[in-house]
Amino acid sequence: MMKQARTLLSRSLCDQSKSLFQERVKASTLRGFASWSSSSTPGRGSYDAPKPGGRLFAPYSIFKGKAALSVEPVLPSFTEIDSGNLRIDRRGSLMMTFMPAIGERKYDWEKKQKFALSPTEVGSLISMGSKDSSEFFHDPSMKSSNAGQVRKSLSIKPHADGSGYFISLSVNNSILKTNDYFVVPVTKAEFAVMKTAFSFALPHIMGWNRLTGQGNTEAPPPMNVTHLKTDPQLELEWDK
Amino acid sequence: MMKQARTLLSRSLCDQSKSLFQERVKASTLRGFASWSSSSTPGRGSYDAPKPGGRLFAPYSIFKGKAALSVEPVLPSFTEIDSGNLRIDRRGSLMMTFMPAIGERKYDWEKKQKFALSPTEVGSLISMGSKDSSEFFHDPSMKSSNAGQVRKSLSIKPHADGSGYFISLSVNNSILKTNDYFVVPVTKAEFAVMKTAFSFALPHIMGWNRLTGQGNTEAPPPMNVTHLKTDPQLELEWDK
Amino acid sequence: MMKQARTLLSRSLCDQSKSLFQERVKASTLRGFASWSSSSTPGRGSYDAPKPGGRLFAPYSIFKGKAALSVEPVLPSFTEIDSGNLRIDRRGSLMMTFMPAIGERKYDWEKKQKFALSPTEVGSLISMGSKDSSEFFHDPSMKSSNAGQVRKSLSIKPHADGSGYFISLSVNNSILKTNDYFVVPVTKAEFAVMKTAFSFALPHIMGWNRLTGQGNTEAPPPMNVTHLKTDPQLELEWDK
Amino acid sequence: MMKQARTLLSRSLCDQSKSLFQERVKASTLRGFASWSSSSTPGRGSYDAPKPGGRLFAPYSIFKGKAALSVEPVLPSFTEIDSGNLRIDRRGSLMMTFMPAIGERKYDWEKKQKFALSPTEVGSLISMGSKDSSEFFHDPSMKSSNAGQVRKSLSIKPHADGSGYFISLSVNNSILKTNDYFVVPVTKAEFAVMKTAFSFALPHIMGWNRLTGQGNTEAPPPMNVTHLKTDPQLELEWDK
Repeated sequence: MMKQARTLLSRSLCDQSKSLFQERVKASTLRGFASWSSSSTPGRGSYDAPKPGGRLFAPYSIFKGKAALSVEPVLPSFTEIDSGNLRIDRRGSLMMTFMPAIGERKYDWEKKQKFALSPTEVGSLISMGSKDSSEFFHDPSMKSSNAGQVRKSLSIKPHADGSGYFISLSVNNSILKTNDYFVVPVTKAEFAVMKTAFSFALPHIMGWNRLTGQGNTEAPPPMNVTHLKTDPQLELEWDK
Repeated sequence: MMKQARTLLSRSLCDQSKSLFQERVKASTLRGFASWSSSSTPGRGSYDAPKPGGRLFAPYSIFKGKAALSVEPVLPSFTEIDSGNLRIDRRGSLMMTFMPAIGERKYDWEKKQKFALSPTEVGSLISMGSKDSSEFFHDPSMKSSNAGQVRKSLSIKPHADGSGYFISLSVNNSILKTNDYFVVPVTKAEFAVMKTAFSFALPHIMGWNRLTGQGNTEAPPPMNVTHLKTDPQLELEWDK
Repeated sequence: MMKQARTLLSRSLCDQSKSLFQERVKASTLRGFASWSSSSTPGRGSYDAPKPGGRLFAPYSIFKGKAALSVEPVLPSFTEIDSGNLRIDRRGSLMMTFMPAIGERKYDWEKKQKFALSPTEVGSLISMGSKDSSEFFHDPSMKSSNAGQVRKSLSIKPHADGSGYFISLSVNNSILKTNDYFVVPVTKAEFAVMKTAFSFALPHIMGWNRLTGQGNTEAPPPMNVTHLKTDPQLELEWDK
Repeated sequence: MMKQARTLLSRSLCDQSKSLFQERVKASTLRGFASWSSSSTPGRGSYDAPKPGGRLFAPYSIFKGKAALSVEPVLPSFTEIDSGNLRIDRRGSLMMTFMPAIGERKYDWEKKQKFALSPTEVGSLISMGSKDSSEFFHDPSMKSSNAGQVRKSLSIKPHADGSGYFISLSVNNSILKTNDYFVVPVTKAEFAVMKTAFSFALPHIMGWNRLTGQGNTEAPPPMNVTHLKTDPQLELEWDK
């Protein structure tokens, strides 16, 4: 009965939020992609991989009373370094998007905030036990004299009874004098989906699903660094 | 000896049920698919992916004394939303089909009932410890004034000795005044197959195996919602 | 020092066994395959999938003092059932091959015995804790009046100190009056390789890596049955 | 605050090491590969697999105060053995590269040392609990009269408080009278990335992701052997 009730609530949230969202789909800008290869048949659950040039959206979304959380992998990009060889250029991430509820069962897409989990932060999340906490800090200006002016922190804290977690994002902007805060309670089942899907996605955002790895070639020195908060990937968080 | 005996029983069940089933294969309707690409060679264990247009059936089936349970992933479908970009339209699921035994070692395919596990319900199942229970409720008319007239509940309960689970489905139809109930005892090994295969399938039913995820594109707002019991996918449960 | 010693021993075993084996490679029959597609370049670690028509051998082998164990997945085969739709015809398996040591550091390929783990038996193995045991029985004549004349049992038993397992195969043939027995001690690390590789292989031997799963088609009744010891796949064990 | 500080430090390390590294990229030799297929678009996160002939570099790198560790999978290679059939010829590995810090925030690529984890060593690493240790020994001359002259050992030891591990490599060369030692502290999150990415990579370095496995063909005897320290793959460690 308990579960049934929660389900009904979720459903209502969705109906409302769907309409709110659908109006905006047309308006949302999809920049920089020319065309989707016509070899796959949209609307049928075909198995072939998406073609470059087209993009595919399949976020995992959790709608709750005060905010919604939507997660989606962002794959890495590569640069040609030498006669046909490619090197990872920008790490992939798991992009978390938070949206505030702006009234009963409505979410405001314009007020969304993003947080891009790096591979190591994903490692931290997927190794959490039911009593563990995690906290991550990102600063888009870390490299410059503006360091500390805008700060984001993502926090994952267990429910006291082990039934799930609170995932919260705090964004403090000392220039605009704004302070955004989102909190989404996540059930054990929803967190299990995240752990399994993130474990699947991790080798992909690292680029390991594309390795050929012929052993007799000397690899050039590594260029990408874990924990680097100011690389181009992570600045995507700041595109609203 | 114990195991041997069980194996012999299973075998007998199969022989019988095979004949019962095979008669019906011809009669069963396979709607809406034109042709299988001729580039793969049927009957050989070739590795290449199935082509759109053809479908492939590979259920994991558990035949027991009073009922049989068969599980198969259903992939999501996608809709073109903008110049070559696709968005997930209907979530995938893990479709469970129950069939009653209608006599010794015979199962009645016509009296089957289905239950489509959503990604979050799959998350719940794969995170179950050996002492945990789960219960899920689906109502096909949840959105309408008919809510509550037909109700399905799927229950997973551990054996007292930790040697496996009982998976049962109850379907209560207050209009037709019917009440179907199926229970299938599942061994620890069979449940391990389900957990491993479901963990493999989860990113696929979420559509994450198809993501390209170029980071410099703004994603449109999420449209699919977890726990939504009335989306088109889940209504497939009701096609008998 | 301990480890080093063991390594040196393993190495010696290999050198010997390699020469013994290489002589036989030419003699061994590779039936029923015409040609390997020329689009991949043999001898380079290329990433593209093997083409139908060619076969690829990559067993995981464990060479020990009294016997060797080699494991390899066998993928399922499919049959066309209707206008382009395929159905799984013969389940895949994880084929274990045991070879006795026939002298110091030599293994006798001619005296090998096979045991094909079904998906459910794989589920049993990958869910074993460090103190758990498993035992599986296969009888190739189970269906006929010859049932019980030839019996195979595979046993997995933990070392007392939790440092690994003994994997043993016993083949009792009451017609030929033979009784073969193999035992291979497997370290914790080797068992971890098996668990990880078997978990990867499980969805493949079930055929789930090939599913398209369009939701709006009615699936025909399931035809393959777990625990069926007499299906064509398992009889492959008996081809020496 | 603690985390923030560490992040800033990492960042600085990177900026420095990036410049140091980038100078050397041009000088580094990429032997033996002709061209990258032009069908993929470099610089876009496209999903299609890399083509043979081009190589892709995507190491997972951990930069710390005294040394850096970079890991990358090396796929196996195959040889044609018979009319279109391929056999694994050289096992894949997970190649670990250590570089010493040669001053504040600078790493010396010329003084790097490599250690190639075999599938079984990978199995050992991914099955480690938070209190477990592992140690692996490689000797490139094991087969010859020079055995013992050069010895490498890789050690993984847990932090006392369970917060991570020390991964260290010792290379003792009694001919050149050199003794290199590297130690990299690895956090629990970084180790979780390694475990997940190594579990993903394991079936690939074993060649199992390429198996077709038609059941009705007799496999030739296994030729590759676990723990063989002197096979061609592992000697790649010695190419500086």
